[in-house]
Amino acid sequence: MFTIGIIRVITLESESLVKKHGEIVERILPNVKTYSKCIEDQPEGIYDEESEKKAIPKIVKLAKEMEGLGVNGIIVSCAGDPGIDVLEKELKIPVTGAGRPTASLALAISDKVGVLGITKEPPKPFKEVLRDYIVAYEKPIGVKTTLDLAKNIDSIIRAAKRLESAGAKVIALACTGFSTINAAPLIANNVNIPVIDPVMAAAITIYYRIVSRT
Amino acid sequence: MFTIGIIRVITLESESLVKKHGEIVERILPNVKTYSKCIEDQPEGIYDEESEKKAIPKIVKLAKEMEGLGVNGIIVSCAGDPGIDVLEKELKIPVTGAGRPTASLALAISDKVGVLGITKEPPKPFKEVLRDYIVAYEKPIGVKTTLDLAKNIDSIIRAAKRLESAGAKVIALACTGFSTINAAPLIANNVNIPVIDPVMAAAITIYYRIVSRT
Repeated sequence: MFTIGIIRVITLESESLVKKHGEIVERILPNVKTYSKCIEDQPEGIYDEESEKKAIPKIVKLAKEMEGLGVNGIIVSCAGDPGIDVLEKELKIPVTGAGRPTASLALAISDKVGVLGITKEPPKPFKEVLRDYIVAYEKPIGVKTTLDLAKNIDSIIRAAKRLESAGAKVIALACTGFSTINAAPLIANNVNIPVIDPVMAAAITIYYRIVSRT
Repeated sequence: MFTIGIIRVITLESESLVKKHGEIVERILPNVKTYSKCIEDQPEGIYDEESEKKAIPKIVKLAKEMEGLGVNGIIVSCAGDPGIDVLEKELKIPVTGAGRPTASLALAISDKVGVLGITKEPPKPFKEVLRDYIVAYEKPIGVKTTLDLAKNIDSIIRAAKRLESAGAKVIALACTGFSTINAAPLIANNVNIPVIDPVMAAAITIYYRIVSRT
């Protein structure tokens, strides 16, 4: 049995929402328990450079607390991988964001990747990992922050279809808010290509890092 | 509980050797059972273009048999991903080799990847996924086929150290024979960077493909 710390990069009031990503991890990895905590004072999460910059010291602080509590690995549940560079140097346990794992898992399936995100451009980890293997990028119309995803399901599905039409052979979801609303299977039911859920991608990546040490 | 078919691309006599990769998969994924079979008449496995070409129709035949038996997904346990292009078109269930998953999982960790293989150059999936993110490629001295790995542990470790010295921040093992001899932890004990085991990488990738459908 392993314990994975989940850092939520959005301030959430409801305990059931706080645990949501952890529950996804526990569902796909039956020998894992999760421990989730939110950063403070960011009710809209991370959605641009400034909100990311503000979040990083809070993420680092939470990660150190979690390491102190004895978790086996940490997921910073965000597709922008905020603070990962710093944490890789400062922690002894494995740590991952959701960005590089999602981009990489897409690339494990095909080198024609469609990226679906909430920012103007693909988040940096997607650009770095995929480069010109990104065949198209889309942002659902009507979505600015992760909080807008739940009420824009149709717009999300239309954006995914545009990625498929553009030649994508796999879709990488570039915001963990898509995991919160369980968008991957909804999208997969409307396209003929696999869809990568960012929290699941982060889960299997950190799980590999943990079990490969044992 | 899921069942994963494991195609061994080498003809093995001993039943315990046949099951070896399946056992690795079952160890890291407690809710998975595996079903392993070898291709016929290739006691040295795949180690160059000709031996790969000979193997592909045998791999396709075995994969179709396994799909008929009702497995949930298939791993072709080889870092060259032989036959995967064909199988992706012809099967209804997910299928993966070990090449793209290993290269991609390395890239999830860092874009400075050292590749350790048994062929003259990195196998094609590694070149395609990583391109110039391969900081160095090494082949252990004394190793020609996968069968030579077990008796060349020191040479393998020396090659891994050369990759680390060349600036690699993660090592991708580019032959599933390294998994057979459990080389990843042996190497990891001698370097300060993570090492990606190809059978484990294939396991978590196919597992994602299976659970994300449920």
